[in-house]
Amino acid sequence: MTDKKYTVGVDFGTLSGRAVLVDVANGEELASSTLNYPHAVMDAFMPDGVTPLPPDWALQHPQDYLDVLSTTIPAVLAETGVSPDDVIGVGIDFTASTLMPVYRHGTPLCLTERYKNEPHAYVKLWKHHAAQSYANRMTDIAKERGEMWLNRYGGKISSEWTFPKIWQTLDEAPEVYREADAFVEAADWIVWQLCGESTRNSCSAGYKAFYCKGEGYPSKDFFRALDPRLGGVIEDKMNAPVRSIGGCAGYVTEAASALTGLKVGTAVAVANVDAHVTVPALGIDGPGKMLAIMGTSTCHMLMDRTAHTVPGMCGMVEGGILPGFFGYEAGQSCVGDHFAWFVDRFTPATYVSEAEARGIFPMQLMVEKAAALKPGESGILALDWWNGNRSVLVDAALSGLFLGMSLQTRPEEMFRALVEATAFGTRKIIETFRSNGVPVNELYAAGGISQKDPFTMQIYADVTGMEIRISGSKQAPALGSAIFAAAAAGEEAGGYADVFDAAKRMGKLSERIYRPCPENQTIYDRLYVEYDLLHEYFGRGENNVMKRLRALRAEAKMQ
Amino acid sequence: MTDKKYTVGVDFGTLSGRAVLVDVANGEELASSTLNYPHAVMDAFMPDGVTPLPPDWALQHPQDYLDVLSTTIPAVLAETGVSPDDVIGVGIDFTASTLMPVYRHGTPLCLTERYKNEPHAYVKLWKHHAAQSYANRMTDIAKERGEMWLNRYGGKISSEWTFPKIWQTLDEAPEVYREADAFVEAADWIVWQLCGESTRNSCSAGYKAFYCKGEGYPSKDFFRALDPRLGGVIEDKMNAPVRSIGGCAGYVTEAASALTGLKVGTAVAVANVDAHVTVPALGIDGPGKMLAIMGTSTCHMLMDRTAHTVPGMCGMVEGGILPGFFGYEAGQSCVGDHFAWFVDRFTPATYVSEAEARGIFPMQLMVEKAAALKPGESGILALDWWNGNRSVLVDAALSGLFLGMSLQTRPEEMFRALVEATAFGTRKIIETFRSNGVPVNELYAAGGISQKDPFTMQIYADVTGMEIRISGSKQAPALGSAIFAAAAAGEEAGGYADVFDAAKRMGKLSERIYRPCPENQTIYDRLYVEYDLLHEYFGRGENNVMKRLRALRAEAKMQ
Repeated sequence: MTDKKYTVGVDFGTLSGRAVLVDVANGEELASSTLNYPHAVMDAFMPDGVTPLPPDWALQHPQDYLDVLSTTIPAVLAETGVSPDDVIGVGIDFTASTLMPVYRHGTPLCLTERYKNEPHAYVKLWKHHAAQSYANRMTDIAKERGEMWLNRYGGKISSEWTFPKIWQTLDEAPEVYREADAFVEAADWIVWQLCGESTRNSCSAGYKAFYCKGEGYPSKDFFRALDPRLGGVIEDKMNAPVRSIGGCAGYVTEAASALTGLKVGTAVAVANVDAHVTVPALGIDGPGKMLAIMGTSTCHMLMDRTAHTVPGMCGMVEGGILPGFFGYEAGQSCVGDHFAWFVDRFTPATYVSEAEARGIFPMQLMVEKAAALKPGESGILALDWWNGNRSVLVDAALSGLFLGMSLQTRPEEMFRALVEATAFGTRKIIETFRSNGVPVNELYAAGGISQKDPFTMQIYADVTGMEIRISGSKQAPALGSAIFAAAAAGEEAGGYADVFDAAKRMGKLSERIYRPCPENQTIYDRLYVEYDLLHEYFGRGENNVMKRLRALRAEAKMQ
Repeated sequence: MTDKKYTVGVDFGTLSGRAVLVDVANGEELASSTLNYPHAVMDAFMPDGVTPLPPDWALQHPQDYLDVLSTTIPAVLAETGVSPDDVIGVGIDFTASTLMPVYRHGTPLCLTERYKNEPHAYVKLWKHHAAQSYANRMTDIAKERGEMWLNRYGGKISSEWTFPKIWQTLDEAPEVYREADAFVEAADWIVWQLCGESTRNSCSAGYKAFYCKGEGYPSKDFFRALDPRLGGVIEDKMNAPVRSIGGCAGYVTEAASALTGLKVGTAVAVANVDAHVTVPALGIDGPGKMLAIMGTSTCHMLMDRTAHTVPGMCGMVEGGILPGFFGYEAGQSCVGDHFAWFVDRFTPATYVSEAEARGIFPMQLMVEKAAALKPGESGILALDWWNGNRSVLVDAALSGLFLGMSLQTRPEEMFRALVEATAFGTRKIIETFRSNGVPVNELYAAGGISQKDPFTMQIYADVTGMEIRISGSKQAPALGSAIFAAAAAGEEAGGYADVFDAAKRMGKLSERIYRPCPENQTIYDRLYVEYDLLHEYFGRGENNVMKRLRALRAEAKMQ
């Protein structure tokens, strides 16, 4: 036992889980370990690999999450030789709303013999979009009833949130709904596995389940209006206490100690959402500083001292990011996913050979070719809606668009247009915040793209006209979780009094800053006008062709 | 010398020239020979291979055309052993307006030492679109002046026609304009090489240079209004006599005999345009029967007894297709070119490997995968404007569009959407004819796609809801030229009295008929509504984003 104290942060992403072991004194990351989920995202077939899933489904397997705990935490302890005695806390963060039905003691229904072949018994991943029709009806009914809380969520309920997923389960698999003793966020389920107590974190509850400090969840009348059978959903299926982020959920149990190698009694932070937990990892501590967490998708985090109604944001939750501020969330449901889609499916054989000959990945070659182009040179414009639009349209039924191709058009030109489209999407979000009274003065970025892709980052600086500061950690969410763990452990145990103190000492920024190039900015200002015109035309109902094509596609697939 | 008589038809396409030797009695094609143009289409560089050409240029080299004469005609004679004594006529057809400046005796300026490095001295291929701004100004001025002939051309002048190309030459290379004794269609230039006399065929003159029997060309005042220097263009640069198609232009000279192996004195048919010459090759002899010649681009030929004004058609010329009828032309400037663009540039390496392993071309594999999809299943819609829109928008500045992509979208889905988009484009043309009083009762197809691509042809039948009959010849334009050659030779020489008689005996249809599948028709009716909505929105000025992107692209390339 030494004087040095450590915390562990575990970040559960879309495809993998990652643990980091962090020095509480300065945020130094001593080791990290990643496990790719063995079942990844199940969007075509059930775990048996043969039973097909309908379009827009996205499931996960909870055993994968336990495997992350049992492999990555022991791995970082072993690699560093740090004694579990010196690890004062563990924090976790997760995608959300990533939701599963469980029995009273926490066993997921899908892990039982009875329900292993029932799709609705599995974890519905955040990007499970098959509950879209439920989200739509929910929005309509909330509007009809004049539910005030709807204003905090941009006036539109996303299929990625909690209750559309629960309602879909009730409607399509009533037995699963009846059998389940609770629907829990995967985040809270992991904390439950660690400390033996079922809690709900205020971040997921606030952003994904309409929970508000003081007011609680929406009324029984509202749920009854959706479906009489949903009247008791809060008491019957979501009755664990809501705990504020920044606090302590409990302490590592013997079972969890056996699973992870952590000491019994180690503080377990209240669970958190992966995007929100990242904010203090960059040392951000107040209003006007937008953080974009850029990976397969992008989340935008922003705080202000006052509450504003901003159309199309994903949620505004008091204390939802850091205590004392109104936390705003916006998002783009498809960013890196676009780039991977294009490179995986459309890289021509000649480019693959060229990349192989040079010993680089096709993605690197595509980026290199796209980077050689000037803004506007391709004549191509895209709408970044391959996975729908989260902000500011909140509409999963939208789809992608490429415009401007000629017979001279090369793959890298379409690739660059996709990257630019996601930057235009971010600018649209920034402008929507600003025009609704929420200042955006500084721009920060974390996530894989911010660390590995200077080409994309420069385009974002040019398109937004803002300097962009980058996370000093390659695994900012995990570092954020470790920061929350240090706050959960408290000052006496060698941690910190609160998350602000912890962030000040443990948060980190890179020295690299992306600055806009005025020449490119001028061209992107013109292209943004075009993007905006198409955004409004296809996104606001003037021409609902994307929705009609999607409906036709579903019909055709049924036949 | 036997009783059997033969004619030779030579078809000059975009990338190659092809001769067929045909039995005059029944249209049987005894042999054919093709030469790919050594210089192909020069759209990036001058013949030196280093001097770059601006965007939208497309040049050709006239020596390539002579090479076609000197290799393919001797080849068919040699292959069949037919004596030149029994070849009673030769006919040729060409793309149009494919135009070159020449000296008094026919030497193209580009073949001289002085002008070999001057781009404007070369042949401007039909798809040279760099004269678009001249075409636009010409339309504006013709409208302002109330030029009635404009109604015969759908109210809009295409950059693919004669005078925009001449005006561009005058404006950008005044010396070339001054030095040239004539601007001639490549079609007429070839006939000139064969029979030693400079003539202009009524088909090119009518469809591409606003010539009308009885009225002649537009007035000197009109040309002066364009540019004072153009006032004398007809007398100074286009003064050869216009001859009606179906007639004889002259007889093979000694020089031409040496070049081709044909006998001195063989009848040479008046030149013709490749699309128009194809009509009798399918035995089509009257109104209501639309012929689509489907290759890299598509031309639509249709006749009626009366004159109608149809917006966006390419031209209406009395006797322009067959004597005695008003000939209507419409077109799609990019069809097979789309498919080749996609497969050449976007076939992923895995598909290439799969095709190689199976010993098939990537195109075949793509078609196979696309054919396995049901209409509507992909959710993707395209606008077929990669090379602009010829009919019914007559706008080369439009560009391509793909809409409806998701992260599940596969290459074959986008490929199929492109094929469908070209079929929707044809349907739009048919509906525009019908709604303007020109009946379309039957649909015929010729060209490479009609012969080799049942997948595409079935989609066309399903989209148009019409049965499609197919040319019985794989080289219908060349056969058409051979039919016109038999009419030029006349009855006494062993040919026919007119082109109707010749067509009746020599025209051919395949036994294969494509019939619409009612189930697919229903779905394509719905998709066509969506296509039409986007067609009008992007094509009629409501959102000119495609033009603005094109302008920005040109600016960016300049910098």
